[in-house]
Amino acid sequence: MADAVIPSFDFTAYLVKARDRVEEALDAALGPERPNQLREAMRYSLLAGGKRLRPILCLAACELTGESSKAAMSTAVAIEMIHTMSLIHDDLPAMDNDDLRRGRPTNHMVYGDAIAILAGDALLTRAFEMVSLRSPNVPVERLLKVVGELSLVAGAPGLVGGQVEDLQCEGKEVDLDTLEFIHTHKTGALLKASVVCGAIIGGADENLLSALRTYANGIGLAFQIIDDILDLTASSDVLGKTAGKDLIADKTTY
Amino acid sequence: MADAVIPSFDFTAYLVKARDRVEEALDAALGPERPNQLREAMRYSLLAGGKRLRPILCLAACELTGESSKAAMSTAVAIEMIHTMSLIHDDLPAMDNDDLRRGRPTNHMVYGDAIAILAGDALLTRAFEMVSLRSPNVPVERLLKVVGELSLVAGAPGLVGGQVEDLQCEGKEVDLDTLEFIHTHKTGALLKASVVCGAIIGGADENLLSALRTYANGIGLAFQIIDDILDLTASSDVLGKTAGKDLIADKTTY
Repeated sequence: MADAVIPSFDFTAYLVKARDRVEEALDAALGPERPNQLREAMRYSLLAGGKRLRPILCLAACELTGESSKAAMSTAVAIEMIHTMSLIHDDLPAMDNDDLRRGRPTNHMVYGDAIAILAGDALLTRAFEMVSLRSPNVPVERLLKVVGELSLVAGAPGLVGGQVEDLQCEGKEVDLDTLEFIHTHKTGALLKASVVCGAIIGGADENLLSALRTYANGIGLAFQIIDDILDLTASSDVLGKTAGKDLIADKTTY
Repeated sequence: MADAVIPSFDFTAYLVKARDRVEEALDAALGPERPNQLREAMRYSLLAGGKRLRPILCLAACELTGESSKAAMSTAVAIEMIHTMSLIHDDLPAMDNDDLRRGRPTNHMVYGDAIAILAGDALLTRAFEMVSLRSPNVPVERLLKVVGELSLVAGAPGLVGGQVEDLQCEGKEVDLDTLEFIHTHKTGALLKASVVCGAIIGGADENLLSALRTYANGIGLAFQIIDDILDLTASSDVLGKTAGKDLIADKTTY
């Protein structure tokens, strides 16, 4: 039997194009929020760059169903808003007390704690608004299902639960079960939801959703392992980690 | 022409019964959230009593359409969760720095700032989850419309925007426009959404929704005037205000 011919696929070009589309949609997603300072604080963190891994996964999962990824753009933006709000709140002095994020001062360092908390709240609610806006050709049932998925992943059964557990373990030895709980809730859950929600928008059936959940669990785990390795090997906490990740991303042209 | 006979209606009994039903639904609405401390913090503030004015308005507006108020209970609970999360976040030291709420220590005084922020986040997302859960006999279109209304009112165009403006005006003389902006966003918006969302669940058409928006604007204004009068006349900041409101409520048996 002859070897199967695998068509060549420029993965890096695909990522760059998808990221550009996401950046454009994120920029357009915030409107004339009042007061000005609130709008600025929301934009400061939402448009701070990054790989946009979650929204790209969302768009790609939608494409996988045969649907145009345009249908999933509002959901992709909503997911990045949820990711951003969780970073803003986690960075607060009352929590992880981080001064830098992606090489820039964190939201509360620029706008103060109160505005940072409120900008996070506003991004979270704007995420649900994005999903509730009727996308042409997307049945209402699918949008409501996405609201359900995102509300779970952003709340106690996801990001919030993981962060509370993480705070409680600070400075303590943790067992494997607890570590897994923190990783699956703080990192894995939103990655998984990104894939699942994109596929829901595209009209995936339960079989495909179930396969994608397994796939997305694998991504979450791989992501965490890379992150942990970079924590040990990167030369500086913030810039080194980012540089390391870029290096890995640049090598994955397949 | 003979005087019209107005059937007698025991308003207080209606309120008490509705409040009891809301309390029961709130108690049942929080599940096995992990970690325990998060669940406790969420329950501490959500079940701290209060008039439950917003959920009762929501149920009553649903009844007005001819639909059973049971259909609107998830939405009523979601609205009280949003109200509660806004109180928890507003009370934080970074914002209004309040130690007492309804005569009890505020959430952050009991659980610390980090858990208070996260409990608020979790209540906000749980609110959207409540609405996304399919209620029997409620068409999906109505639920998604409620998601849209609540996301607006909880975010920058509502509670968050009002709170940012309020923080920016602290200790300054404010003009009437700014004062109105703060009141309509911090108080009026959620009261209005309570009425509107209940009516949406019941299937109100645009004419009825428009009339109810006008009615709810009036409630918001009345509420604010009573609140301002009690600020001037009540004997103590916390207990006196509450006592004064009880007195007014007790007299409204019509």
